[in-house]
Amino acid sequence: MTTLDISNKSCQATLKLLGDYWTLRIIDALQDGELRFCEVQRRVDNLNPVTLTDRLKKLEDAELLVRTEDTVDKVSVTYGLTARGHRCRPVIEAINDFAGNA
Amino acid sequence: MTTLDISNKSCQATLKLLGDYWTLRIIDALQDGELRFCEVQRRVDNLNPVTLTDRLKKLEDAELLVRTEDTVDKVSVTYGLTARGHRCRPVIEAINDFAGNA
Repeated sequence: MTTLDISNKSCQATLKLLGDYWTLRIIDALQDGELRFCEVQRRVDNLNPVTLTDRLKKLEDAELLVRTEDTVDKVSVTYGLTARGHRCRPVIEAINDFAGNA
Repeated sequence: MTTLDISNKSCQATLKLLGDYWTLRIIDALQDGELRFCEVQRRVDNLNPVTLTDRLKKLEDAELLVRTEDTVDKVSVTYGLTARGHRCRPVIEAINDFAGNA
């Protein structure tokens, strides 16, 4: 086996983002489609709104998630994964597999 | 796709351990065989010895790594991955893949 090139800035940034438990839970919760804030919250053990807002913002900044306001009713906001967000799946699966075999 | 069960303690513990950049770098450095402290250090950008000692200890506590003292010369110590340590590989690969496609 050859050594992977994980010594680059991109891997460090990935780990900084995806090395967080709630971030992975949120990505996992959104994999089947868009959800509203309270729906995401319900799926991630009623995570406190401050932490949830923070993680949603970080995911949006990293372009893993899009926040969509309803064009008519501006109050209605949904969160959905981008194509890049869906590409996190193997990371979640690998962690899940490792944890399951631990 | 079904939602993964990442809401368990085992996944949280995995992420707490493997969500650290230097920890993954050390695992990666050790994948081809046992190394001495200074050899590990050289392969992970001359990481400061305090941090390296801390991460090696955490990996040993989690049974991902074994520390072997030379039976004759007690000063000579090597670090090697356990079978469980080698099972981290898919996690590193998934992060590497995601970062590469980012």
